[in-house]
Amino acid sequence: MHPRTRELLSQASTATITTQLLARGLRNTFLHGIKPLNPANARLVGPAFTLRYIPAREDIDVLEVFKDYDHPQRKAIESVPPGHVLVMDCRNQGRAASAGNILATRLQVKGAAGLVTDGTLRDTPEIRQLQLPTFAQGASPLTNLAQHHAVDMQVPIGCAEVAIYPGDVIVGDEEGVVCIPAHLADEIAEPAARQEDLERFILGEIQAGRPLRNTYPPDEATLERYRATTGHPPST
Amino acid sequence: MHPRTRELLSQASTATITTQLLARGLRNTFLHGIKPLNPANARLVGPAFTLRYIPAREDIDVLEVFKDYDHPQRKAIESVPPGHVLVMDCRNQGRAASAGNILATRLQVKGAAGLVTDGTLRDTPEIRQLQLPTFAQGASPLTNLAQHHAVDMQVPIGCAEVAIYPGDVIVGDEEGVVCIPAHLADEIAEPAARQEDLERFILGEIQAGRPLRNTYPPDEATLERYRATTGHPPST
Amino acid sequence: MHPRTRELLSQASTATITTQLLARGLRNTFLHGIKPLNPANARLVGPAFTLRYIPAREDIDVLEVFKDYDHPQRKAIESVPPGHVLVMDCRNQGRAASAGNILATRLQVKGAAGLVTDGTLRDTPEIRQLQLPTFAQGASPLTNLAQHHAVDMQVPIGCAEVAIYPGDVIVGDEEGVVCIPAHLADEIAEPAARQEDLERFILGEIQAGRPLRNTYPPDEATLERYRATTGHPPST
Amino acid sequence: MHPRTRELLSQASTATITTQLLARGLRNTFLHGIKPLNPANARLVGPAFTLRYIPAREDIDVLEVFKDYDHPQRKAIESVPPGHVLVMDCRNQGRAASAGNILATRLQVKGAAGLVTDGTLRDTPEIRQLQLPTFAQGASPLTNLAQHHAVDMQVPIGCAEVAIYPGDVIVGDEEGVVCIPAHLADEIAEPAARQEDLERFILGEIQAGRPLRNTYPPDEATLERYRATTGHPPST
Amino acid sequence: MHPRTRELLSQASTATITTQLLARGLRNTFLHGIKPLNPANARLVGPAFTLRYIPAREDIDVLEVFKDYDHPQRKAIESVPPGHVLVMDCRNQGRAASAGNILATRLQVKGAAGLVTDGTLRDTPEIRQLQLPTFAQGASPLTNLAQHHAVDMQVPIGCAEVAIYPGDVIVGDEEGVVCIPAHLADEIAEPAARQEDLERFILGEIQAGRPLRNTYPPDEATLERYRATTGHPPST
Amino acid sequence: MHPRTRELLSQASTATITTQLLARGLRNTFLHGIKPLNPANARLVGPAFTLRYIPAREDIDVLEVFKDYDHPQRKAIESVPPGHVLVMDCRNQGRAASAGNILATRLQVKGAAGLVTDGTLRDTPEIRQLQLPTFAQGASPLTNLAQHHAVDMQVPIGCAEVAIYPGDVIVGDEEGVVCIPAHLADEIAEPAARQEDLERFILGEIQAGRPLRNTYPPDEATLERYRATTGHPPST
Repeated sequence: MHPRTRELLSQASTATITTQLLARGLRNTFLHGIKPLNPANARLVGPAFTLRYIPAREDIDVLEVFKDYDHPQRKAIESVPPGHVLVMDCRNQGRAASAGNILATRLQVKGAAGLVTDGTLRDTPEIRQLQLPTFAQGASPLTNLAQHHAVDMQVPIGCAEVAIYPGDVIVGDEEGVVCIPAHLADEIAEPAARQEDLERFILGEIQAGRPLRNTYPPDEATLERYRATTGHPPST
Repeated sequence: MHPRTRELLSQASTATITTQLLARGLRNTFLHGIKPLNPANARLVGPAFTLRYIPAREDIDVLEVFKDYDHPQRKAIESVPPGHVLVMDCRNQGRAASAGNILATRLQVKGAAGLVTDGTLRDTPEIRQLQLPTFAQGASPLTNLAQHHAVDMQVPIGCAEVAIYPGDVIVGDEEGVVCIPAHLADEIAEPAARQEDLERFILGEIQAGRPLRNTYPPDEATLERYRATTGHPPST
Repeated sequence: MHPRTRELLSQASTATITTQLLARGLRNTFLHGIKPLNPANARLVGPAFTLRYIPAREDIDVLEVFKDYDHPQRKAIESVPPGHVLVMDCRNQGRAASAGNILATRLQVKGAAGLVTDGTLRDTPEIRQLQLPTFAQGASPLTNLAQHHAVDMQVPIGCAEVAIYPGDVIVGDEEGVVCIPAHLADEIAEPAARQEDLERFILGEIQAGRPLRNTYPPDEATLERYRATTGHPPST
Repeated sequence: MHPRTRELLSQASTATITTQLLARGLRNTFLHGIKPLNPANARLVGPAFTLRYIPAREDIDVLEVFKDYDHPQRKAIESVPPGHVLVMDCRNQGRAASAGNILATRLQVKGAAGLVTDGTLRDTPEIRQLQLPTFAQGASPLTNLAQHHAVDMQVPIGCAEVAIYPGDVIVGDEEGVVCIPAHLADEIAEPAARQEDLERFILGEIQAGRPLRNTYPPDEATLERYRATTGHPPST
Repeated sequence: MHPRTRELLSQASTATITTQLLARGLRNTFLHGIKPLNPANARLVGPAFTLRYIPAREDIDVLEVFKDYDHPQRKAIESVPPGHVLVMDCRNQGRAASAGNILATRLQVKGAAGLVTDGTLRDTPEIRQLQLPTFAQGASPLTNLAQHHAVDMQVPIGCAEVAIYPGDVIVGDEEGVVCIPAHLADEIAEPAARQEDLERFILGEIQAGRPLRNTYPPDEATLERYRATTGHPPST
Repeated sequence: MHPRTRELLSQASTATITTQLLARGLRNTFLHGIKPLNPANARLVGPAFTLRYIPAREDIDVLEVFKDYDHPQRKAIESVPPGHVLVMDCRNQGRAASAGNILATRLQVKGAAGLVTDGTLRDTPEIRQLQLPTFAQGASPLTNLAQHHAVDMQVPIGCAEVAIYPGDVIVGDEEGVVCIPAHLADEIAEPAARQEDLERFILGEIQAGRPLRNTYPPDEATLERYRATTGHPPST
């Protein structure tokens, strides 16, 4: 991901990005049902670092396992590179949490870009106070091994029924999280920014009383006004 | 709808209205699962203007269709009369949005009373800033044609598994949305207002320490106090 | 419940309590899907007083039944002792509410510790203003007899698929509600407090930049620092 | 229940009975999602004997409890009078079974009329061979205390979200199970039989090529033919 | 639809047809959750004739409405042309049936090709005896107006979340129902038949012990054997 | 797995095995919602060979991928050793099939013991004719890459929310599938056989008219009769 791509994507909404991906034939890129725990810090961009859970088994997943500092969940937390997003596959199951405040705080201290799970988180009152953008289906106080067994990391996973490959670019905002396949991130960053710019102009026109006809989508005359007003070239 | 009906209903809660409708044998009038996006602007009253979606098909519902300004979705937005509520039947499906901020803004500029969908909306961070009362099952950034095909308007629809006929009176508050059959709106407006007035009085009694017995529901002595205190006739 | 137990539990999070219960073999103690209506007043501790609903029947559950002040729902409200929590079994069904603002206010006036239902509540805009900690799956304006029939009280019930026996200790916070079997409340109160104290220390260490290794869970050296810093004995 | 009522109801379909109950204002009488395990033996009529389960708790519901022959589940099985139907409230949860083949066989030997649960049954390959009409949401091999705790019997319950009072009349056929409130069983038995008789005649007419118009529902001429052909008075 | 198309499609499985449609970019053509009531008569081909239901309302949808022989449901049944398939949009809701045995029998007598609903049917023990291919999500004895209001026919609908336009070609087999957009039916009929023929050959090879490699999908040598054995040209 | 273990387990029901596992603290071993496609061939015992799917992505999962004979799905089929069970993790999603008849036939030819998926299968009319025990949540004709991407094999997976490690022992019967952790298979085989033997005796007693008291569970006198009649030692 070029630095310019990160900059452009950090200003693009998930609404814009999903449209850009749809135009390229990708319909299943938004993580439905996953919401920001702290909407004020929902702006997120970074490559995915993946962690996979399978269902827990009572004889394996006992409280003592955490005494092993190389437990896959702990190891994953310590392995996320700065600027990356930890994405956890919990099979969309949330009776037990995927992680809690201490692990989320460690991620923040290490410079991770964000935390995304299709399960739940615990200690959410504290997590809501973090700067770290954090996305989940909700809250559950139960510790993860009551339902989840961390098994491996940096493998392709599903998260909220969307394919996530390590290195895909994760973008989040107040509406949720979208996954951009790694090879498309640079390609869509510029068109996404242009689309946003044009739509801001169109919104102004609508606020000023123009009807949808000729304005949204813009006809040639509207595009001409857009160019004249903003000096920007129109997006396509 | 008489102007007096609109005035009375705009002060009645959905709790009161559903009770009035239940007393007349109507049990299925509340749109379960549909919540206000901006609770501070949730007060809504107006006749329903309906728009029906069916599932999208990949060869028909392509991004290019919006170049036709007579596309049914766009036409519906421009057709909602001032003071009316656009109610959209999305079959309770929300993977793709029913509409976004530009269309919602256009509705507001045109003087619509509100926007209700049993699906989702996109651009919700911006929609939450509108004055327009807006109700949905949640947010999705995906543009509507990824799942929905606008097909016709002003036909009877289902919304959140409630029958909505064009002209039915839609009332919303922070708890959600209720649909009053057109022929009952005038009939229940006055009893609803009286019920609210009486219940406010009863609440004061309970806050002052009276037990439920004799107070809720009010016996004759409580009704007498109500009349004496407020000068109002009791509701039935 | 010893007064000291109440004091300790009122400072323990549901995250800590569910871990203590899990350590004792109890995996199903959290009421999944039940959330505080007013998160600022979510701190709740008290013994359970139970009310059981079955599905309503149209010929029995008519609006007139409330004229009987000994109707089981009303009687239950008046029977909850001060400091107790009214827990209602609505079979996880929420199309109609379990109770509304007048009944919740009466509970508050009588000194109840809280109100928990696995269904919904009505008049939630007003209920959100109460001091009474109140937990539900959400809001519905429909009066309870449209779906529920109050049948008996102080029997063992299920609430959100968790067993609740009268007298079990209910604890709530912003993440939701946990049920502690009566015989375990005193036993876990002290360990829970110690666990919270230790985890606060560990969080400080993590915030200061320490890695998970040796810190979380704490090794002997970390425990030593904890004892030295706080003067507290370590939890186990 | 008059013997004549039992005889008439044992020939009426659940389709006919639900229509008779709907005509009397009862819309929620069919146990949705509950199917016969052995459709060839689905014909069932008898008064309800109820058993209520709540969720299990790991420290109470251990395999040893069955050593107590007065365990509520075992006691319920032994208490069902001949000709009655054991109806079990499992909160519509089926991860663990409500009962297995040995208990079902005991019910059959004792002369029970049938077995209905809104949960699951185990040993279903064997249960399918019984004469006893048996209805459930499906099969699960897990023994009941993995999820269920039998708590009391002969109290009003919900089963598949339908109210069941002890003594209500349970009728089953290949489509499933309907609950007739006790006070209506005698009242609807005769009209149900007449409706079935008339509809058999109408079906013959339709099979012979008559259109729906004038035939279904029958106009006066069709009713006349019905009376002339069968010698029966028309149902209403 | 050419007669040849009907002939070819009546021998093609839904597995083959969904693959042909997927190859043309259509991913949402199978009616998930809809099963044949009588698998022995599941083979179905014919153009769709649509009927749309919205939710019922208690004051409109009373048992008396059927006295009007022009009630939309009855009118739809009488309007289905021979060889066509009645497809009903019940919003995937099945608490009340979409139709019963008398109406299904009338359809059969009139020469309809089949009956498809995304809701339920009643009188299913009798319907299972019909020759008419009949598909539904299951059985419910409740008459349709307890939940459904027939509103109009021959409009585009959704059925099991698939778009159905009047005239689309409906194909059914033991696995369920697929909808072929009208303009594609002729186009895919021949390739579907060729695909089936080739796969039958491949299956024989696999049964004879060949590995997947080189056989499935067929390499040039396998295709050569296919051509030599069957004399047919290979599908693509 | 000892040959004797396989022999004993092939006669034990899933009801018995789940009880043996529950007695050892394992509550989550049955694959809920997964049913045999051909109940007459449901008896299944064998070690698990796992295949993991993640969600498909439109640009990767195109029909052409199958031209690669080393595609992970095809490779997995060819890698299952004789006597092993292919267990597929489809995240409980079934809109597209996990496999079809040609692959299932190849498995059978190669001597696999069975096929289990928590998704669906296609070509089920043909699969039902195979000898191979086959378990799925149902049928869907859609080819797998419309929803699934085969990613790796012989890693730990979840199947129907149960943990499956390669080599765990899979047992199936008409009620479904249970997973025995590898290290417990030999341990429980003998007790399971003894439990079955004892329960067959108890069933005979119940059929002969004995009450549950003293018989089920058996008291010492019943156990004595069991030993005397069968010559077997009692299970515990």
